[in-house]
This record gives sequence, C-alpha cells and structure tokens, in this order.
Amino acid sequence: MSSSKPQNVRLSRLSQQMASNRLDGLLVTQMASIRYLCGFTGSAGVLAVAGKHARLFTDGRYTQQAREEVAGAQISIVKQSALTAAAQWLFERAERIGFDDANLTVRQLQALKKQQKSSDARKAKLVATEDIVARLREKKDNSEIEKIAAAVNLGSSLFPTALAAIRPGVAEVEVAGALEYAARRAGAEGMSFDTIVASGQRSALPHGSASSFRIPPSGFVVLDFGVILAGYCSDMTRTVSVGKASGKMRSMYEAVLEAQLAGIASVRAGVPAGQVDAAARSVLQRTKLAQYFTHSTGHGVGLEIHESPRIAKGQPQLLEEGMVITIEPGIYVPGDGGIRIEDMVVVTATGCRVLTPTEKQLIEI
Amino acid sequence: MSSSKPQNVRLSRLSQQMASNRLDGLLVTQMASIRYLCGFTGSAGVLAVAGKHARLFTDGRYTQQAREEVAGAQISIVKQSALTAAAQWLFERAERIGFDDANLTVRQLQALKKQQKSSDARKAKLVATEDIVARLREKKDNSEIEKIAAAVNLGSSLFPTALAAIRPGVAEVEVAGALEYAARRAGAEGMSFDTIVASGQRSALPHGSASSFRIPPSGFVVLDFGVILAGYCSDMTRTVSVGKASGKMRSMYEAVLEAQLAGIASVRAGVPAGQVDAAARSVLQRTKLAQYFTHSTGHGVGLEIHESPRIAKGQPQLLEEGMVITIEPGIYVPGDGGIRIEDMVVVTATGCRVLTPTEKQLIEI
Repeated sequence: MSSSKPQNVRLSRLSQQMASNRLDGLLVTQMASIRYLCGFTGSAGVLAVAGKHARLFTDGRYTQQAREEVAGAQISIVKQSALTAAAQWLFERAERIGFDDANLTVRQLQALKKQQKSSDARKAKLVATEDIVARLREKKDNSEIEKIAAAVNLGSSLFPTALAAIRPGVAEVEVAGALEYAARRAGAEGMSFDTIVASGQRSALPHGSASSFRIPPSGFVVLDFGVILAGYCSDMTRTVSVGKASGKMRSMYEAVLEAQLAGIASVRAGVPAGQVDAAARSVLQRTKLAQYFTHSTGHGVGLEIHESPRIAKGQPQLLEEGMVITIEPGIYVPGDGGIRIEDMVVVTATGCRVLTPTEKQLIEI
Repeated sequence: MSSSKPQNVRLSRLSQQMASNRLDGLLVTQMASIRYLCGFTGSAGVLAVAGKHARLFTDGRYTQQAREEVAGAQISIVKQSALTAAAQWLFERAERIGFDDANLTVRQLQALKKQQKSSDARKAKLVATEDIVARLREKKDNSEIEKIAAAVNLGSSLFPTALAAIRPGVAEVEVAGALEYAARRAGAEGMSFDTIVASGQRSALPHGSASSFRIPPSGFVVLDFGVILAGYCSDMTRTVSVGKASGKMRSMYEAVLEAQLAGIASVRAGVPAGQVDAAARSVLQRTKLAQYFTHSTGHGVGLEIHESPRIAKGQPQLLEEGMVITIEPGIYVPGDGGIRIEDMVVVTATGCRVLTPTEKQLIEI
C-alpha cells in the first residue's frame, strides 16, 4: 500500500463493502470515518460516496483546510447544511443509499426524508446500515499502527512527569496539569480524553476526572490518560500507592495485575472478544474481587479513543490481526479505593504485541 | 430560588413545559441537560421524567458518583442499557413520551420502538420534540451567571500567560500548552474546547487548533480558548500582531473591532438574534470585508460551549434576559491572515453586560 495515498486504498475497500451490502451510495456522517477515508480533519462535514466517486461537503470555515488535506475525494464548499447538500448529490446518483444509523439523529433522518420527497428522487431508498466504515477501521494498517505506537510511546514518556507531581496535599488537577503541559511540549495535539487522576477515596470512582481534591497521605492514585498524535489516540492507566501499601492493598493490586496479564495472554486473532474479558474476569472471580470489576475489559483505539471492537462479557466478535485494543481490568472497592491497569496491544496471528512500555510493578511514592 | 437545590426548581419548570406540550413523560438523553436537571456529571446515563417524578438510569461505574451528586431524582443503577431501562420505566407510567430528536439516533429510536412492541406498552406514544430542556437552559439563573462569570474571569486571567509565550519561532502548541497548564494550576476542570492558536498564514483558518507550526516573525496570531469551571464554559478570542502591524493590518483589525462593538451595542432583550448578526456584519459590509466573515456572529454558552440561541443571519429568535452569548465576528483573508475578537455577554432588559474583562486594543508583540 502506498503510504502517501492510503485514502484511495481505503475508498476501494469501502466500495467492495458497499457492493456486498448492495449499496450504490453511502452517506458518511462520522467525522473520524470521514478523516479515515479522505484525510479531512475538520470538525464539520459529510462525505458522500457513489460508486467510485467520493465528494466531501463542508462549509466556508474549512475551504483552505479541505484543499490542503483531502485526497481521493472532490470538495464542495456549501452555504446550506453539508448533510442536505451531500444527500442531494447522492439522490442524483444513487438508488440504495446507506447511512450509519448510530451516527444520524432522528431529526436528521426526518429532514432527509422530507428533502427526498420534495426533490425528484422518489426512487432512491435510504438504508440503515451498521457503520461500514467503523468496521473497516477496526483492522489497522501498518501506517496506522506506527502512528498509534508513536502516540503510545509519547503517552508513556509522560508517566514519570505525573509521578514526580504526585505527593500528599497536591490537588489532582495539578498532577493532570503537569502531565498535560508535558504532553504539549512533547508535541501532542491534545489529550485523547479528560485526564483521570483519582486519589484516595476517589480512586473508587472508575471515571474520576482530575478534581480539586488533594491527594491524601496514603492510598491509591489511579492515573488514566492518553494523547493524540497525528490524529491517533493513546490510552494507558497505572495505579500507584502514596506511602507504603498495606498487605491488603498489595494483594488487591497483585490480583488486578494478574487479571490484566491473563487478559493479554488470551489475545490472539480468531479468539472471541468475550473470551479475553472472561480470562481477565476469572482471575478476579478466583480472588473474590470480581464483583468490584464493574466495567468491561477493553475497547478498540484508533482515530477515536473508543472504537469497536468492544472487549466485553459474552462478545462473540472474533479478534483479527491488526486490531488495536486496550486491556484494562479494574476493581473499585468503596472504602478501600480502586485499582486499574491498562495497556494497549496489537492483535497478531499468534497472540499480541504489547505497545505500552511502562512497567507495571506497584510503585510506592 | 434556593441555591442549594436549584434542580427542584428546574424540574418544576420542566413539568410546566411538558404540560404545555401535552407530554406526561420525557426521555432526557443529552448529558448537559441531565446535569442541569439533576446535577449528575457522569458521562453516561438517561433521565426519565414522568409527572412529578424523575429517575436517573446509569451504570455501575457511576454508583458512588450518582449518590453524591444527584438531587431531585431517584437513581437506578442498571446492567443493561440505561436508555432501555429508562424507556421501560416510562412505558409503565406515561402515554405521551417526548424525546429530543436531535439527541437520539435512528438506531436508538428503532430499538425503543421494538422494545415498546414487545412490552405491554402499545398505548404509549413516542413524540419527537425540540429539546425542551435546551430551551429551559437558554436563560441562565443568577447562580449560573455567577459560575459563568467565574469561568470567564479565570479564562481572561490566563491571557497574559499566552501573550508571554508568543514569540517568533515558538510552536503554536507550546503557547497552547503554557495556557492550559496555567488553567489547570488556576483550578480549571479542563478546557472547554481545543485551544486555537493560529499564527501567520494559519490565522486565516477560522478553526486552526494549535499545531506544530512555528510562529512567523510577523503577522497575526488568533488565540481562541476557554476553560470549564464548576461545569460552566468560558469562551474568548483575541488577535495580536507579532511585530509592528502594517497600516493594512491595523485597518483590518479596527474594522473587526468596530463590528464586534456594534454587535455588542445591538444586544438587548426582545431583539431578534439575527439583528445582532446584522449589526456586526453591516460594519464589515461598509468596509468591504464582509465576504471574509464566513461564520455567524455568536452562540449561547453555558454547560456546553455551544448552546442555543444561535446569533446568526436571519435568526428570528428573540433574545431574553439572562441569556449568555458570545459576540465574535472575524475575517479570514487568504494571504493576509485572519482576525477574530470575542467576548461573552449577558443579555439584560436594557442592553447587555460584557463579562470578558480583557482589553481589545491591538497588541503588538
């Protein structure tokens, strides 16, 4: 594959998918999917695909940017809604037009149906599909894996900065601030989600974004953060102990680490995603901690921080070579606090390659 | 209004709105609207309202957080989808159930209809509504205006830090990094959107998020940024000149500033939003720059960075006391660069109060 024009290869793969869904038109409304297909990084626009032709519809704010970025698609700068313009273009060219029903609102579909009636496109049919492009995006190509690995390495390189900022009495947001400033200086385009710094009692909140809460003299601190580099996201979690960890804290930590390693060991192309979740969960069942593992084991990562596949209980979807997923079991025990450990891995034919280089032994600060 | 339980007052206002829409049930799916009504700050959940009763449905990640935060609503922690559980609760209690069609996907609605058929709720009717809660949120109460003003003041206090970081050869992301680190240290919960630092040629990109581009020895730098404090967003833009501004640059700047001041001068309760846009735009028409003003004049700000009302061409919606909006005309001239100046204002009976304290005379660095 030519790395200079991956878009054309992707659009060809998309055409095949469309054909097998008997679609001659497709409305792409999800911004990350639009970026994936044609390179456009703006925050508003719709990509229309009809047969071998693709056209990006966006507005006057993005004239220069679209010209610089887009490959493999024509560009229309429109004054009305990009969705309306894209649909009109498709109504004139296609009869079975797919749309991603998870990325179109009820209001938008109503407007499209009204538009269709008033235009001369009564024969055209709007067909709800799964997100065909999201499926294409699950398996990363080599250029994407390189970019993801670079984002992961940048993210990991920030961990010592966060560690250095952690001490009793410091507000969680100050730790997040030090981390994020270091990310910017190292060239990150941004953080891939709200940085989580959850200390003491707050470590029992699985989604405890950094707050003004001050780190207590003892207990866990969960750090969950990621950066965006060349459009691709990283995601990692480490949990450290402030002060010496008690025996109970240490055994809880070891159980989560063992679960995480069991999850990683179970990853391989051809394995159902639910089996990876079960591998991690069963370790915590054995140690009677599974009731505190209240979320799923992982998720895909790429242009978005959360992509398919989901690594969750009972998920039948088979892992494939080139998928990039997180493995992140955690336990949240009210009163005792929480622990989560997360790496990103690339699925291979024989197992997986762990991208996250940061060590996982319990660190006491 | 009791400031400790604003949620109850808001839920009462909501009940009135529901009654006037002949709804006895409402599905609230927009997270900022859920926060507004019951105080929940998690990132997943659905609020169901039936008559005088409200119930938040969320998952096990948010058990502790929901208990700490929610007022005026009961809480259900569910294992299945929160939307499914909320709909089921409503099917058992209400017959005309409103949903916000701009915040429900086609797929979600299909699932709800299927669920309704299989449950014993054939009489219930799902009714697409405008976002009733978004309308309630347009007019801010005093406690909200205080929070917004605090966010605006924090944002403005960071401007000197950004100025100090700007000099030729420095990457835009370093300026953004310095600004964001200062925001964190000052207690911001986060930035309200991707910080824009657009220098030189890039200043002609209306949405030029900070990049690795290095600030050139002369030209404009557009800085557009905001912070989140107590959940509320700030939003401000200033444009500075690196080196001495040419006569042309200065006259362009003065035109945008005049347009911005004309926009502010036109704000008053009872005035159509489109009239404010026209006031700003007409100044640029007079100076032959209107073709470069490619976006609308402003938008509401609150729990979200972009809320209704829109301050755009032809908008008939009347401004009301307590609305908080931005006034931000800008011009983007390929080759010459771009300029945008933005303040936040509170609409009053007789005009408006400008919240942003930062001066607007052209600064040369």
